[in-house]
Amino acid sequence: MPERYVYDFAEGSREQRDLLGGKGANIAEMTRVLGADRVPAGFTITTETCVAYMDGGRVEPDGLADQVAMALTRLEERVGKRLGDAEDPLLVAVRSGARESMPGMLDTVLNLGIGPAAVEGLAARTENERFAWDSYRRFVQMFGTVCRGVPGDALEAAIATRKRTAGVELDTELSVDDLRGLVADFEALYTDRTGEPFPTDPAEQLRQAIRAVFDSWVGDRAIEYRRISGIPEDWGTAVNVQQMVFGNKGDSSCSGVAFSRDEITGAPEPSGDFLINAQGEDVVSGVRTPDDLPGLTDRMPTVYAELVDILARLESHYGDMQDTEFTVEEGRLYMLQTRGAKRPAQAAVRFAVDAVEEGLLTRAEALATIDAGSLDALLHPTFSADAEPEILVRGVNASPGAAKGRIVFTASDAVAWANLGRDVILVRPFTEADDVAGFFAARGILTSEGGKASHAALVARGMGRPCICGASALDIDLAAREVRVGDVVLRQGDQIAIDGTSGLVTIDDVELVEPPPDPNFQRTLEWADELRRLEVRTNADTPDDARRAREFGAQGIGLCRTEHMFMAADRQPKMRAMIMAEGLEEQTAALADLLPLQQGDFEGIFEEMAGLPVTIRLLDPPLHEFLPDPEELALEIQRGRSEGRADLEELERTLERVHTLHETNPMLGTRGCRLGLIHPEIYEMQATAIVRAALAVEARTGRAPHPEVMIPLVAYEKELERMRALVERVVEREGGDGIGLSIGTMIELPRACFVADRIAAVADFFSFGTNDLTQTALGFSRDDAEGTFLAHYLETKIIDRSPFDTIDKPGVGWLVRLAAWTGREAKPDLKLGICGEHGGDPDSIVFFHDVGLDYVSCSPFRVPIARIAAAQAAVADTGRLA
Amino acid sequence: MPERYVYDFAEGSREQRDLLGGKGANIAEMTRVLGADRVPAGFTITTETCVAYMDGGRVEPDGLADQVAMALTRLEERVGKRLGDAEDPLLVAVRSGARESMPGMLDTVLNLGIGPAAVEGLAARTENERFAWDSYRRFVQMFGTVCRGVPGDALEAAIATRKRTAGVELDTELSVDDLRGLVADFEALYTDRTGEPFPTDPAEQLRQAIRAVFDSWVGDRAIEYRRISGIPEDWGTAVNVQQMVFGNKGDSSCSGVAFSRDEITGAPEPSGDFLINAQGEDVVSGVRTPDDLPGLTDRMPTVYAELVDILARLESHYGDMQDTEFTVEEGRLYMLQTRGAKRPAQAAVRFAVDAVEEGLLTRAEALATIDAGSLDALLHPTFSADAEPEILVRGVNASPGAAKGRIVFTASDAVAWANLGRDVILVRPFTEADDVAGFFAARGILTSEGGKASHAALVARGMGRPCICGASALDIDLAAREVRVGDVVLRQGDQIAIDGTSGLVTIDDVELVEPPPDPNFQRTLEWADELRRLEVRTNADTPDDARRAREFGAQGIGLCRTEHMFMAADRQPKMRAMIMAEGLEEQTAALADLLPLQQGDFEGIFEEMAGLPVTIRLLDPPLHEFLPDPEELALEIQRGRSEGRADLEELERTLERVHTLHETNPMLGTRGCRLGLIHPEIYEMQATAIVRAALAVEARTGRAPHPEVMIPLVAYEKELERMRALVERVVEREGGDGIGLSIGTMIELPRACFVADRIAAVADFFSFGTNDLTQTALGFSRDDAEGTFLAHYLETKIIDRSPFDTIDKPGVGWLVRLAAWTGREAKPDLKLGICGEHGGDPDSIVFFHDVGLDYVSCSPFRVPIARIAAAQAAVADTGRLA
Repeated sequence: MPERYVYDFAEGSREQRDLLGGKGANIAEMTRVLGADRVPAGFTITTETCVAYMDGGRVEPDGLADQVAMALTRLEERVGKRLGDAEDPLLVAVRSGARESMPGMLDTVLNLGIGPAAVEGLAARTENERFAWDSYRRFVQMFGTVCRGVPGDALEAAIATRKRTAGVELDTELSVDDLRGLVADFEALYTDRTGEPFPTDPAEQLRQAIRAVFDSWVGDRAIEYRRISGIPEDWGTAVNVQQMVFGNKGDSSCSGVAFSRDEITGAPEPSGDFLINAQGEDVVSGVRTPDDLPGLTDRMPTVYAELVDILARLESHYGDMQDTEFTVEEGRLYMLQTRGAKRPAQAAVRFAVDAVEEGLLTRAEALATIDAGSLDALLHPTFSADAEPEILVRGVNASPGAAKGRIVFTASDAVAWANLGRDVILVRPFTEADDVAGFFAARGILTSEGGKASHAALVARGMGRPCICGASALDIDLAAREVRVGDVVLRQGDQIAIDGTSGLVTIDDVELVEPPPDPNFQRTLEWADELRRLEVRTNADTPDDARRAREFGAQGIGLCRTEHMFMAADRQPKMRAMIMAEGLEEQTAALADLLPLQQGDFEGIFEEMAGLPVTIRLLDPPLHEFLPDPEELALEIQRGRSEGRADLEELERTLERVHTLHETNPMLGTRGCRLGLIHPEIYEMQATAIVRAALAVEARTGRAPHPEVMIPLVAYEKELERMRALVERVVEREGGDGIGLSIGTMIELPRACFVADRIAAVADFFSFGTNDLTQTALGFSRDDAEGTFLAHYLETKIIDRSPFDTIDKPGVGWLVRLAAWTGREAKPDLKLGICGEHGGDPDSIVFFHDVGLDYVSCSPFRVPIARIAAAQAAVADTGRLA
Repeated sequence: MPERYVYDFAEGSREQRDLLGGKGANIAEMTRVLGADRVPAGFTITTETCVAYMDGGRVEPDGLADQVAMALTRLEERVGKRLGDAEDPLLVAVRSGARESMPGMLDTVLNLGIGPAAVEGLAARTENERFAWDSYRRFVQMFGTVCRGVPGDALEAAIATRKRTAGVELDTELSVDDLRGLVADFEALYTDRTGEPFPTDPAEQLRQAIRAVFDSWVGDRAIEYRRISGIPEDWGTAVNVQQMVFGNKGDSSCSGVAFSRDEITGAPEPSGDFLINAQGEDVVSGVRTPDDLPGLTDRMPTVYAELVDILARLESHYGDMQDTEFTVEEGRLYMLQTRGAKRPAQAAVRFAVDAVEEGLLTRAEALATIDAGSLDALLHPTFSADAEPEILVRGVNASPGAAKGRIVFTASDAVAWANLGRDVILVRPFTEADDVAGFFAARGILTSEGGKASHAALVARGMGRPCICGASALDIDLAAREVRVGDVVLRQGDQIAIDGTSGLVTIDDVELVEPPPDPNFQRTLEWADELRRLEVRTNADTPDDARRAREFGAQGIGLCRTEHMFMAADRQPKMRAMIMAEGLEEQTAALADLLPLQQGDFEGIFEEMAGLPVTIRLLDPPLHEFLPDPEELALEIQRGRSEGRADLEELERTLERVHTLHETNPMLGTRGCRLGLIHPEIYEMQATAIVRAALAVEARTGRAPHPEVMIPLVAYEKELERMRALVERVVEREGGDGIGLSIGTMIELPRACFVADRIAAVADFFSFGTNDLTQTALGFSRDDAEGTFLAHYLETKIIDRSPFDTIDKPGVGWLVRLAAWTGREAKPDLKLGICGEHGGDPDSIVFFHDVGLDYVSCSPFRVPIARIAAAQAAVADTGRLA
């Protein structure tokens, strides 16, 4: 009894990927759901056959030929056509299909079965002699190169000769006679190469095509691809032999694409396009304008009814909106493909809500159909859909939403103009900590350098300001206050509009549209809150941000960066005074000036977040970030000397301090708790402000805030121990024992993950700072990588996604897991959260759910997305358990 | 039958640390070796007793009182004296002793047993009434504070009052009557505090003292110390009750220290100091000048003979040169302490060789007695031992050895002056890649900034140049070419001398002494080579370095940094031309210029390392390191503008390029293989130079070199895959298949350690770059940390040793282990080495041995040290197995 090598499509299902390959399993599934008549028939030769063929030294295993012959007979009987038939020939496609898709790596032979007789039958049936002969020509060419190694360039040369002789330039201009001649040319080349006549027996053609697919599994391209993708060689590939169908056999034939619901709005009516008497590629290519799908009611009412029914069945079976391809051959409807439909956000949430109401899906299933990352579009204004602005320049879509305003080139101009009530767009080569006040004032930000992880992008996303980065065609002259793009020169005050969702910049006066509140979105968010386990907090540094985030459903603040408070225009001089202070006395005075301001900041935030936790990170960035740029300062001093300026001494003192504080790699320098340990007076001022603010808000409102003090950049448990002791002393001194302040740390260095158990012993919580953890674990400086090697790595496919967008699981992910495990081992009730940019990325959120974190924290505008993603993670998790 | 709580000293041994505590076990060991008569007698109350006491709610366990009473009786019988005796009283010390030393954390009571009667006996025996009464006073004070919480400041106030009344300033000026009065004062304060009279019963005193030691185990200080040091609370502490002996009981008494061999030279004669009629602290304090130990022959011939015999027995027992303390009380010799003797390098190697020849130790045992880190002194010139130069300034001893020369302030001056045959010392605030040519030219380097891991220190150690860093008292004015230290002003050309071993700088014309070749050192190195498993290679970038390292015993090159080759004066312009090139053509031309120079470099190194492996790291640093400083350049341009300079355009173009290449954190920027992937032409040039050099050397000398190409900064396996493919293409193109070139990577990023199995699949070897791994795992920028927070951390004991000196085991060490394990799992014959600075650190070498690396690589002058340390690691390992 020979082994089983061949399965008809009607026998398989999607669970049999390993045996039938991805394509074979999918066709089988569709056949199973729709019935054998609806899907072009055929059979799959199993992956095991390929392995047996290879193991046997490229010899077909015994019995395979018989099984293929029997399957072919069954196929001919089912479709009522015969391979090579002169009237109405059966043609088949022979395609590879491994467990995982290996696009373009394995071989395919189309139109198999065509020959001197069958070509005439095809011509008659399609009423298109040229099409028939071109198909024949393509088959001979494909079979020759794929199955027998006839050199492709020899064949191409034959085509060129024919074109020269015919005096035409394009392949499509060759006549039927030319094509006839080409078939003869090709067959001659085949004989030259192989010493054999071109095979006319379709069974022999099929045998060779199957061998060719198997052989391609061990071809150079496939081996290289497998090595890179980590696909084992012993998986093998399946071979699918499938009837070819033709939508161009006259007016009772057509081809089209059909969505089970409107692909733009999600409205529950099928939509799509079709073309009578055409092949599938004609619908897509746009050479002819296709008709709207509902038009098919008139042209082929029965077929349309069948199609609508099929779409409903597919949607119900797959539990998702479907995007299908179909062909009608002489009145008979074939489904070629079905897959989940890509759709814009409003369609996605509408489908989810409708599907639940229709009883099609449970809430959990409906949520799982939403692409959480796409929901951004429901939260930000956009260019009006009718607008077709002329594009001035494109950049990196760094923070979503659209904005319009007058160009300013400095943060201080932005503040000044905004105070006059003008909308401004801040345009700079790049931005720095100094510029943050300008972000508050501006409607949007546009830079010529940097990418999605640049300073501008991070700050803009945090504040929900639209931002485009790295628009490198902009030539910005800050001194002249103008920017050139080719011949266009724009000056301060000129109007531009930016769309941070698409990365487009225009000088047209385009209309901006606020997204209307979407009740479907609200429904899905409510369901998400019922289903998710992860809490969602926000990263917010101001009462405004806190309020907005709370409206978006944030359950507290996971990261309040205190340094941004020192960047505000009224704070910066005091901060500089503190840094420039000579002696402790001057410094203490400067800190005393800052204390009430900090306290005020915290009071505002505590009031907005009444009753919720607020994690405040003590000062993190190196002090030189608060001082001016040394090069500019040095130039100013040199100019000042020749001009006899009066404040030279002060400037020189500042430059000296800038030089002293200068660091080669500030990211790895004196920042975070290192600052707190060297200058405990700064952290003491901040802790005092927090405790006093909490007490004041409690006294005023009667609602106690839950402050959580976060010590950044801990690598050694002793660092945290000492900073904890400092904060505890302040709490005691200020009489703040009653506010239940907790003290934890940001886990953002690899070492901290290795000693997480020791750190946990002195921490109430860990918050993973995955931005810095990514920088250190990968050795990627965020500021430097994006515009340079990271862009190169993405382009050249060294990596698929930026590790700053989606967490790098093998490296950074392991560190997070390790710290979560060992931290919880040392302290089972340790609270775990994440406050890096990854907290708003749906794929990363699934990871954080799986690791067992308690919450994610993200910028206010990502909160709704995080709520959905967290629910999806919980649903997937429950699915795995069940 | 009650449990056993008490052990006499004569019963225990050093293995019983857990039960008897560290001190108890050590005294017992010495008692066991020398006999009970030689060590002041006593007994130990076990750590278990402490635990039982605590568990019982601070109640002495049943039977303890009886066992202590019996032990005290045995003690009195053994020494023939009684507690409280009026003639010749027994006094005891009651000391804590946990398993691990907790210095100063637990309590101690000395002179217990003294009282109104005994004080007279002590006065008569010591012929020193004042000493007796002072001892009494101290006992009452100590007992009161330690055992019953009498406030220390009240007691101090009583002393102050007595001094005021007596009209004296110092405690030592108080008369016997004053002291009598003080005892009365203290006892009154005791009664005030406790409501009880001061206890006169010695047994009761002893009981309370024992309780006090137990109680101190749960005192605040001890709890805090245990928490920080990770000592479990349930270990408990032992209590040692020991007879006190007095070397000040007249001319038949003395105190002294004795070494079993000469502590300076290692010569096999005892040495040391003693003082007749004195206590131990008098010998150490230097108030009286002690006599040389051999003088004891005349004063106490019998005792001296006994002492010499004891020293030999201790040395033989412990297998190491001993450093002891002794007291002779009325003609009877007591040994108070013995421990391994600290000794300079020449004594260490002499002892090792002598001990083997005397049959005292095996070679392995002898090697283990050497402090490998101290051997530096045998390799570098030093200030003459007779010289007592006046110290100008002290800095960080960054690279060992002494040097003398004229001050120059720039690398180019160093080169120019050296070419004139002058010895120069390069003096700079700090150094950069640009300055490396100056290191070659200078005899030594002195900087005012940075520490042991600064650029200056690293390069200097690599080249074996003496270097002092961070001499912050130097005020260097580069523009004026002068340096100030207080009032001293030194100008270019003035002579200074530096000792990089001690960190001292002087302007005296001190004599430098070359260390003579030490045959003992040679012997120990030969033994080390027999015993070690780890290979020792060197980090060398020039033929000179390679030759020197080979003389020191290096077995190949573990790290040849190609960037240093581009820093040489004739290369730098070409390198700059390559970086500034506009278009591929200009760049290709610049690279073609560099190719033959690189090839020449490699040929020189291959010849010196004939037959040995040479690991060459392809270009690693970011390109902007080869360009000028932007601030200086900007100033030059601004000046140039006002002066109408001709080459302004060129300078501006350079500044623009510098700005484009500028990185915020170059350490985490476009460097290493990231450069190679973006600019493959650079790596291709280097690979070509390596293959051609190997072929040329083989053709010329007939000896094939073993080049190993190392790709730096790999985080993703694909990076290595592609660079490997590039190098393999070059090998093939150049016909270098026969040279057996291997290709591997530097493991220097945390992510690489997590995916080491995947990387190993495409690597022939891993070389751990522990410098960069330390920087990334800890988030410590080497350039920035040393002068700032790292210094602060060492000072404030957040860390014990710089992680750049000795590998940080919990963090960096784990990453190394992980990568070694998983790399070898994927490829069992993967070669593993380490080429960071840690490769020359003895403690780190033990770790690398244990992890199973194949080799360590270090700077040439550390090679002998690494050989010894590697042998010690192997010996320790064998010891563990046995």
